[in-house]
Amino acid sequence: MTDPSPALVSDVFARDCTSRSAFEDVTAKWASLVLLALHEGGYRFNALRRRVDGVSEKMLSQTLQSLERDGMVTRDVVTAIPPRVEYALTALGQRVAGRLRDLADVLEDAVPEVEQARAGHRPR
Amino acid sequence: MTDPSPALVSDVFARDCTSRSAFEDVTAKWASLVLLALHEGGYRFNALRRRVDGVSEKMLSQTLQSLERDGMVTRDVVTAIPPRVEYALTALGQRVAGRLRDLADVLEDAVPEVEQARAGHRPR
Repeated sequence: MTDPSPALVSDVFARDCTSRSAFEDVTAKWASLVLLALHEGGYRFNALRRRVDGVSEKMLSQTLQSLERDGMVTRDVVTAIPPRVEYALTALGQRVAGRLRDLADVLEDAVPEVEQARAGHRPR
Repeated sequence: MTDPSPALVSDVFARDCTSRSAFEDVTAKWASLVLLALHEGGYRFNALRRRVDGVSEKMLSQTLQSLERDGMVTRDVVTAIPPRVEYALTALGQRVAGRLRDLADVLEDAVPEVEQARAGHRPR
């Protein structure tokens, strides 16, 4: 048996692989916090902006569009008075957000270790 | 029982929490790929640079220093002729890199879904 064609094997290390750009999109500055927030449930734009502490309106809008493009997030316009726009995770977005939640749990538990490392670090 | 003091609860959503800055450090542009590479084993600087396709010498150096500061990566100078510098994960770095590997696995498996979503996406 020969190896499968490289074109058929996805690899986040390969610059041209879709998985690499998707990995970069979901770990981008605000994207991972947006995915973590939507992992808690659907949000309207303004509520999401309050949840993701520090994000600007412009950055949140750009981040949501990038996540919609990658098939992680849905945007639903709900007919009501006034109409409202709701964001939620797709099935793929749920899988990705679940892994980001696991990562966040590790880091929340590691605060004492990180603080100790920073206190003892001497820049070269 | 009252809730514990907010200062004692770590939360990646809180702007001032150490876990938030550590989360941002390990998901930064090159940091997550460096952690994924070191999850495979220790690397010398130049071999690591080849593995993390596209990173500049300057960005790799800055990324490694940030990860050392957070206690994720160790830097060992090996006495030899010529001397060499080797990078490896700490126990905490292993835990973090393991979660990033899980995330990368999801995205590598999701390439068809992501490509289908991108092909059908109409920017607003």
